[in-house]
Amino acid sequence: MASAAGSWAEVAVEPGWLTEDELASARDRVPILYVEAVPVRVGEDGSVEQVGLLLRALPDGTISRALVAGRVRHGERLRAALIRHIERDLGPLALPRLPVSPTPFAVVEYFPDPTVTGFHDPRQHAVSLAYVVPMAGECEPTSAALDLAWVTPEEASGDLAGELVGGQHRLLRMALAHMGHAGA
Amino acid sequence: MASAAGSWAEVAVEPGWLTEDELASARDRVPILYVEAVPVRVGEDGSVEQVGLLLRALPDGTISRALVAGRVRHGERLRAALIRHIERDLGPLALPRLPVSPTPFAVVEYFPDPTVTGFHDPRQHAVSLAYVVPMAGECEPTSAALDLAWVTPEEASGDLAGELVGGQHRLLRMALAHMGHAGA
Amino acid sequence: MASAAGSWAEVAVEPGWLTEDELASARDRVPILYVEAVPVRVGEDGSVEQVGLLLRALPDGTISRALVAGRVRHGERLRAALIRHIERDLGPLALPRLPVSPTPFAVVEYFPDPTVTGFHDPRQHAVSLAYVVPMAGECEPTSAALDLAWVTPEEASGDLAGELVGGQHRLLRMALAHMGHAGA
Amino acid sequence: MASAAGSWAEVAVEPGWLTEDELASARDRVPILYVEAVPVRVGEDGSVEQVGLLLRALPDGTISRALVAGRVRHGERLRAALIRHIERDLGPLALPRLPVSPTPFAVVEYFPDPTVTGFHDPRQHAVSLAYVVPMAGECEPTSAALDLAWVTPEEASGDLAGELVGGQHRLLRMALAHMGHAGA
Repeated sequence: MASAAGSWAEVAVEPGWLTEDELASARDRVPILYVEAVPVRVGEDGSVEQVGLLLRALPDGTISRALVAGRVRHGERLRAALIRHIERDLGPLALPRLPVSPTPFAVVEYFPDPTVTGFHDPRQHAVSLAYVVPMAGECEPTSAALDLAWVTPEEASGDLAGELVGGQHRLLRMALAHMGHAGA
Repeated sequence: MASAAGSWAEVAVEPGWLTEDELASARDRVPILYVEAVPVRVGEDGSVEQVGLLLRALPDGTISRALVAGRVRHGERLRAALIRHIERDLGPLALPRLPVSPTPFAVVEYFPDPTVTGFHDPRQHAVSLAYVVPMAGECEPTSAALDLAWVTPEEASGDLAGELVGGQHRLLRMALAHMGHAGA
Repeated sequence: MASAAGSWAEVAVEPGWLTEDELASARDRVPILYVEAVPVRVGEDGSVEQVGLLLRALPDGTISRALVAGRVRHGERLRAALIRHIERDLGPLALPRLPVSPTPFAVVEYFPDPTVTGFHDPRQHAVSLAYVVPMAGECEPTSAALDLAWVTPEEASGDLAGELVGGQHRLLRMALAHMGHAGA
Repeated sequence: MASAAGSWAEVAVEPGWLTEDELASARDRVPILYVEAVPVRVGEDGSVEQVGLLLRALPDGTISRALVAGRVRHGERLRAALIRHIERDLGPLALPRLPVSPTPFAVVEYFPDPTVTGFHDPRQHAVSLAYVVPMAGECEPTSAALDLAWVTPEEASGDLAGELVGGQHRLLRMALAHMGHAGA
């Protein structure tokens, strides 16, 4: 996953926040729980019209498209984690409409070894609960994201999907299939 | 099911509208496709706060609580049928937020014989696709419904559920379970 | 959809069976309810290893790959319809393991006009409930199907998908996404 | 949750196994990922006939009914964790039929504070992915479980549900609703 969790973000002392050492220790011992969100714009009848893709600079200096993704903190509800990461990436006016059911449309297993599941996170074994989240407000990519592009479902399932890393292009296709779109 | 499809509603000649004779003929031959909606009000984090229950006069003169339910017409999209029946029961300002996925949270099989599935429709064999639909606007029960009551999930799973007929109290409980509520 | 419902099959007089005239009459009036099954072989841990694709002669003389699909009869349970169509296409020894939940992984809307949803049935407006069904026994294509090919998920999402008609290649991809496979 | 993770089980040194100290450290820092299974017996048409409830001695000396539940280890696939915990509780001949989709029917959030979600684990913040798993073989409660009772869906949703602790009776009801059963 291409998470935006910069090192500065972990300095403050709040419940659930960890120092880099503490996080590294946990990462060596247990799977780390993540949430991921596929931002969408929907029509009046609820059908998807556009999919939001972040542009993000990775630690290795490369740039890639990405979905919203981030860690669930100790003591944090899943809905709170989703809102926190959506606000971090899309700003405070995005007005996300979280689904009524806490059941994700997909569960993805990321491993440091890319051959295990095809979903790859070099830092850790992470298990991610993925949701499609319609945005009702104004989305502005924040400091953690370089850009936000709204594309059609057809564009999202085509060439643009190839610009996501770590297997997120597959998760994007799974989201589109969940919404009734499965390519041409 | 306690549908509001009064006989006057079938007089107009539009695609998908049937005379009573035509509908009766179809009912004898194939399962009739329905959509059902559980209206809810949700908080900012998407979690359910209230469930909407209609009060409806049945053809036999009794009164019962009910969910939104109605037939899918020939040539009609599922999303269009859902919006049409929600507007019929809750008015044009209800602002329903239909789910991004067309997959229902439950499929219910209604039979004239109440012992087959426990879901009962004396008129027909109907198969119903059920959705939870958050309402963002003002809901006003229309002529087809006598009243609309907003109750808590706890109230909906308790005594009030007993006031629904045809097995809809079970569908209501299935909706609550889908939203993470499963009684005390 | 590429259904195997040959005209001879509708002659017998059983509950739910219709003459061609009766079926045509219903098709003009209401959406027709279908079930579809994606046959799979799974490993000991439940993960999909192979997908079964039928080879079928269409009424127009062409040949195409197909999933198991067929109409739900009046008075028939969804599970019974699924088993009936699986046995018709894969034989009586297929030993299908139907899912514990009656909720389909996808609902597909077929229209005579292929531009409405991209799912196309020239005969009718049909709404189909789709299930993934592991087969535990021996599958033998019956008279209605020319052949049955077991292919890997990768093959199924690749070139072979292009040999399905009416949009079933999309449904196949949606099934693969549901099982955690979403292409390369 | 009423997990069977006895202290002896954590002594061996295998990947993913933790000493009590290491586990306690992780528990203080991140949510711990669990899987839960509702064992069922199904009929030929896949519909549930019986639900399996374990009888388990809790650390505080009390006895309660329980579902299969356990931690996902570092580096362990979800399917492997499910199989491992099912074998631990139901023996090596249970022949579990894991679902084709890795998406759980419910996600449950357990907190040390029972008022947060109603799901309660005094030891930790745990997030659990829950699955319904048909058993095709012989289930024998192992040393970690005192007994295994197969009950009807009606019994499971009735009085027996009250004998589960930590909110698992709610998860059981959610599983029954998922299978189309939602009480009387």
